[in-house]
Amino acid sequence: MEIRDAVPSDWPQIWPFLRDIVRAGETYTWARDETEESARAIWMAEALPNRTLVAVDGDTVLGTAKMGPNHRGPAAHIANASFMVAPQHSGKGVGRALGEYVLDQARADGFRAMQFNAVVETNTQAVKLWQSLGFEIVATLPEGFNHATKGYVGLHIMFRPL
Amino acid sequence: MEIRDAVPSDWPQIWPFLRDIVRAGETYTWARDETEESARAIWMAEALPNRTLVAVDGDTVLGTAKMGPNHRGPAAHIANASFMVAPQHSGKGVGRALGEYVLDQARADGFRAMQFNAVVETNTQAVKLWQSLGFEIVATLPEGFNHATKGYVGLHIMFRPL
Repeated sequence: MEIRDAVPSDWPQIWPFLRDIVRAGETYTWARDETEESARAIWMAEALPNRTLVAVDGDTVLGTAKMGPNHRGPAAHIANASFMVAPQHSGKGVGRALGEYVLDQARADGFRAMQFNAVVETNTQAVKLWQSLGFEIVATLPEGFNHATKGYVGLHIMFRPL
Repeated sequence: MEIRDAVPSDWPQIWPFLRDIVRAGETYTWARDETEESARAIWMAEALPNRTLVAVDGDTVLGTAKMGPNHRGPAAHIANASFMVAPQHSGKGVGRALGEYVLDQARADGFRAMQFNAVVETNTQAVKLWQSLGFEIVATLPEGFNHATKGYVGLHIMFRPL
């Protein structure tokens, strides 16, 4: 597995699993019927300080991440990141590898902390992964997420200094 | 004092104090040198579910607020809001009146909670106002804000159900 900056030709491999993850309505705070055009505009970074990354095995995209400032101006030193792993490639450590890479890249880019704004509490695999990478749940918004099958569940805000 | 939806002709009165508040680098997570064009695009809502409000005394704009969803999709029921009061009209209850109006409007618009993402901890007047309106500090990001004169200070996330 290699992690590198995404290029426009990666998008056709990203879109099918990104679309399915968003449509499921279980983990992402996007419109479930997000169009491909809108999703591409959101996910594929145009320029620094935003980056889009892919984890690849040869020509196959296994997962992707995007990162950039979570706030602007006097709080632009706090980074944000989002992650998606293709379901057929889950359980291979893709999320962890992307997470470790993103933390190193954020430090290299000069960020001083990283914040996740919306980690669904029922997404326990993600919560545990981020905790193992040093993130803490700093707040849980009660009933913050309307899960497709579980109804209103909590939405964690997670944070770690870099 | 009356509170109403902002109209484009309000902008020339909003921009001078909005600009000064942002440039001061003490309370807002915007670029301190934000251009008027960019600031207007950020502040003046184009369509629901976003709204921009003004508190006016006759033809004079005393303060302004903007509100809308803080998240999208399955978390779009959480609102966000931001407030600015013209310094020459501070101490007249403009912020409180805008806050109360925004809470009622958010309920009427169907939001179930309101979240502030970035309340600078040294902005004690704002922190106390929001607490008096039912908000709680659910997290403080340590060194989350690089204050123009005080250096790195904490950044509160505040939340209340509606």
